[in-house]
Amino acid sequence: MENSSNIWFEEPLSPGLLQRCLVSNIVCSTKSKYQTIEIIDTEPFGRCLIIDGKTQSSQEDEFIFHEALVHPSILTHPGPETVFIAGGGEGATLREVLAHESVKRAVMVDIDEEVVSLSKRYLPSWHQGAFEDPRLELHYADAKEYLANSQEKFDVIIIDLVDPLEEGPTYLLFTQSFYRLVQQRLTTQGIVVVQSECAALGYTRAFTSIAHTLSTVFPGVYPYKVNIHSFGGDWGFVMATQGLSPLDLSPEEVDQRIATRVTRELRLYDGMTHLGMFSLPKYLRELFDKETWVITEENPLTVL
Amino acid sequence: MENSSNIWFEEPLSPGLLQRCLVSNIVCSTKSKYQTIEIIDTEPFGRCLIIDGKTQSSQEDEFIFHEALVHPSILTHPGPETVFIAGGGEGATLREVLAHESVKRAVMVDIDEEVVSLSKRYLPSWHQGAFEDPRLELHYADAKEYLANSQEKFDVIIIDLVDPLEEGPTYLLFTQSFYRLVQQRLTTQGIVVVQSECAALGYTRAFTSIAHTLSTVFPGVYPYKVNIHSFGGDWGFVMATQGLSPLDLSPEEVDQRIATRVTRELRLYDGMTHLGMFSLPKYLRELFDKETWVITEENPLTVL
Amino acid sequence: MENSSNIWFEEPLSPGLLQRCLVSNIVCSTKSKYQTIEIIDTEPFGRCLIIDGKTQSSQEDEFIFHEALVHPSILTHPGPETVFIAGGGEGATLREVLAHESVKRAVMVDIDEEVVSLSKRYLPSWHQGAFEDPRLELHYADAKEYLANSQEKFDVIIIDLVDPLEEGPTYLLFTQSFYRLVQQRLTTQGIVVVQSECAALGYTRAFTSIAHTLSTVFPGVYPYKVNIHSFGGDWGFVMATQGLSPLDLSPEEVDQRIATRVTRELRLYDGMTHLGMFSLPKYLRELFDKETWVITEENPLTVL
Amino acid sequence: MENSSNIWFEEPLSPGLLQRCLVSNIVCSTKSKYQTIEIIDTEPFGRCLIIDGKTQSSQEDEFIFHEALVHPSILTHPGPETVFIAGGGEGATLREVLAHESVKRAVMVDIDEEVVSLSKRYLPSWHQGAFEDPRLELHYADAKEYLANSQEKFDVIIIDLVDPLEEGPTYLLFTQSFYRLVQQRLTTQGIVVVQSECAALGYTRAFTSIAHTLSTVFPGVYPYKVNIHSFGGDWGFVMATQGLSPLDLSPEEVDQRIATRVTRELRLYDGMTHLGMFSLPKYLRELFDKETWVITEENPLTVL
Repeated sequence: MENSSNIWFEEPLSPGLLQRCLVSNIVCSTKSKYQTIEIIDTEPFGRCLIIDGKTQSSQEDEFIFHEALVHPSILTHPGPETVFIAGGGEGATLREVLAHESVKRAVMVDIDEEVVSLSKRYLPSWHQGAFEDPRLELHYADAKEYLANSQEKFDVIIIDLVDPLEEGPTYLLFTQSFYRLVQQRLTTQGIVVVQSECAALGYTRAFTSIAHTLSTVFPGVYPYKVNIHSFGGDWGFVMATQGLSPLDLSPEEVDQRIATRVTRELRLYDGMTHLGMFSLPKYLRELFDKETWVITEENPLTVL
Repeated sequence: MENSSNIWFEEPLSPGLLQRCLVSNIVCSTKSKYQTIEIIDTEPFGRCLIIDGKTQSSQEDEFIFHEALVHPSILTHPGPETVFIAGGGEGATLREVLAHESVKRAVMVDIDEEVVSLSKRYLPSWHQGAFEDPRLELHYADAKEYLANSQEKFDVIIIDLVDPLEEGPTYLLFTQSFYRLVQQRLTTQGIVVVQSECAALGYTRAFTSIAHTLSTVFPGVYPYKVNIHSFGGDWGFVMATQGLSPLDLSPEEVDQRIATRVTRELRLYDGMTHLGMFSLPKYLRELFDKETWVITEENPLTVL
Repeated sequence: MENSSNIWFEEPLSPGLLQRCLVSNIVCSTKSKYQTIEIIDTEPFGRCLIIDGKTQSSQEDEFIFHEALVHPSILTHPGPETVFIAGGGEGATLREVLAHESVKRAVMVDIDEEVVSLSKRYLPSWHQGAFEDPRLELHYADAKEYLANSQEKFDVIIIDLVDPLEEGPTYLLFTQSFYRLVQQRLTTQGIVVVQSECAALGYTRAFTSIAHTLSTVFPGVYPYKVNIHSFGGDWGFVMATQGLSPLDLSPEEVDQRIATRVTRELRLYDGMTHLGMFSLPKYLRELFDKETWVITEENPLTVL
Repeated sequence: MENSSNIWFEEPLSPGLLQRCLVSNIVCSTKSKYQTIEIIDTEPFGRCLIIDGKTQSSQEDEFIFHEALVHPSILTHPGPETVFIAGGGEGATLREVLAHESVKRAVMVDIDEEVVSLSKRYLPSWHQGAFEDPRLELHYADAKEYLANSQEKFDVIIIDLVDPLEEGPTYLLFTQSFYRLVQQRLTTQGIVVVQSECAALGYTRAFTSIAHTLSTVFPGVYPYKVNIHSFGGDWGFVMATQGLSPLDLSPEEVDQRIATRVTRELRLYDGMTHLGMFSLPKYLRELFDKETWVITEENPLTVL
């Protein structure tokens, strides 16, 4: 008898490279004002959120992405009270932020109310009730405009945006001018972290250019990576600081800060993981050293 | 912005040949006692019924399959009153049978109640209410057992079975012994028609061997074909008779019989279509001439 | 042990519908001045010529395409001596033309010398030496320009062009003005035949509009189709005449003309095949009746 | 104009997950006595060696695999003179081994002469002449039988075998009894390293069970991983020792040993890379802690 399950989600990872996942259910498929949004159930990764054809996060490994995005920055800071999240519509970035006792206020600005609304309904294991936390202030707006029109400063700013697709809603938020604005909205010891696209050999141009662009604004720039299988490989992040450094934290110090400041068990992140994430391989460090592209509105970054 | 719809149903047509359809919705996906059943919405063919991974019929072109299966036999017969349908769970074969005024009684035997139940719910444009017709007697049983245990004779028997997959529920119904049983359940002028798999060059072995096997039981055997795009190409049927011949009907006679005996407008079938369906190309007629395989339970037919 | 052969050629047939063939060898892959040309060996269809990503013909079923393209027109004519071929770089159209004893002169004009050169080298079972025939006069030029600049008239003109892709080399040759030019280059009883794209339900717009456009120039227009598995289904052709009609030929007359005028055995075409090809199904005849689009340079036909 | 390059190599990574690479050339495709061997040129990864349908190494990132496989073990050892390689037919493992000045003798045993022969011909950037090095002794034999029938002891043994496919040539070399044999063929300070399959979340069973099985034979077991994009993600290795530990080497010490003992520039491996490779994330360390499967001939490991 034939294998009957033969419905596949196909995602381009890079030119000439595709990933295909077996699909068991299409939970929803819609177009918002800004982008197309699909939630599907897959065999290898469980439920997945797909925006404009690209996997944003999956049930199986979203914890890797979101823990890697949030904890290094918040724990490098001595005790952040205010956190700003740009994007992050699934609510999982928020979930990780709110796991920190020091955080008194989280302002989240996502342009697309429909992503949040569908996530609330269909992605409960992502947000886990985080949208109900009284520390949250949620706005549906363009993060750049919001920050430009506000004077509030934050201890940590987390840039959790969808890929900078040509004509997509985010590509202007991967620019030097946006990072300058971000720097103005940080407190003195404030830290920003940016999800920074693919970190796999041969496809690191976004990763290295984001880091280089941040280095024109911030004195401390620290790229790191983790493996996210549903994204097809290694994924990059860049932390930028105004003096503090994640490299000053020993594994023991990271474990100590988690024990005293994080209110629940983490699955990915601890001292040893921290060490592994920031210890980039030689060929990748060399690519960062060689990068010269400063991303601007005139010379923007866009990915496949 | 990326094309976001990138979910595909993939179906093997033959070794080394696959067809992929863009999927917009998975309506249902289940395993019955006998087979896996999926109903999906596709861009090229609309809603499709998939059993054990193979397309059974699609919203766009099911009319071609079902009109081609039913009308040539019923109209070659001078005025059939009783019709037996083996399989046909979607209800569209039944729909076409009941469009004939002469038909007083239709007995339909499908092994899988779940196919019928899901078709009633999700495939209304297929059955169009045919399951409610008082002329219908519906059984959930093995068609071979049913015919073996009954003494009733029919004017037309329509064999509308799923592909004979190895270990699937139907491969024993593509055998000489089954066709002998069918012959015993036909009235003197009775006609049988068998959906007979792929008719495309290079993949006609099922088609020619079904015809050859029928020719060991019936004096008149008439293969014909139509193009069904959702099946990936030409599809074969074999009509077997005990004296009557579809080749005796001129296009005008076919049109005349439709006008007087069929109660609604047909979309595929008329006199010209009849002529085209039975006028097989030279290479295909030669393959029928050369075929020597008699399908038996010991030497059964199974397809990919 | 895994199946190791897992290299596939993927071809879009229509929006949301793809065909995938297992590939065993890439014989050549190049870009000419006009188009990309690939010759590959596939499991289901043997060697295939692919131009701009679309299958032009395959070893297994090119005989169907080329016999269907050539013989109906040449045999409808009482005895053509001169034949013009636009396109047909593989040499198989030429091969079929030269199989007719009456033909004294064949002028073939293909824009792309590289297609002819690669076909000579890699597709010997297509041309079978036809390029060496002394009756052939071969030009590498735009067929429209060639005909515009010549005053010669032909008994049969065969338009065997690649699909009219946007910005491709042929879309201006699927227009009313080109057909007018063709008509001026035909002898009094002259016949033209045009390969006319997909004939499968739902994707017949090219087929019906080519026929309709020809009907604005020629008094007799006769669409027909055959099934070509490597093209993913039924394929259309349109014969246009100035008085003669293929429908006037009985199957017996076709067989008789083949016997007396064709110098070798045909595999597809004979009287019965002729009858089947021209007997189109009802839904397709209705689409021809409803078509109103006249293809012009201002409102050109382009396919996927 | 259509994109004409549409030939794809498709590789199953895990159940329900496939990777597709655009193919520009099939360099060779053959079946040896043991396995199917294909060498193809792909857009994302350049030339690739495929055995039994699985990517063994690619031009773009083979340096990551082979440097990660070889250098940590050889440099953890104070100065190995003899090295045994099981498998490694491409010659790139050998290339890395021979880059160590201390190595006086390398014995390589690959079961499949055809892999070596095709690699010599088609993969020059892999072996880079290593097969000509006078320190090499090359045998075409089963590595288990070779080691069982020899009494020679080695300072480092490198197990670079193809995936343990059911009925494939290597699955009996992923067992406790083979690792016991390996232990008997090591000198007192001898080290073994095993390529240990996928290290991506959800698909680590081979990786953790190989490590656990080695831990029943060796006092020191050190799993590590690197990202190999052409393999679809993180890839695991296990080093097993009899007292020495890679964790005792600081990044500075690794850099120092490379500077004094390795005769050419490395691209992946240095002190920082070493630190990153052995610093596994928390969830993965927990999976190693929980693993209880000892791989035996009766209860063998096989992968997709």
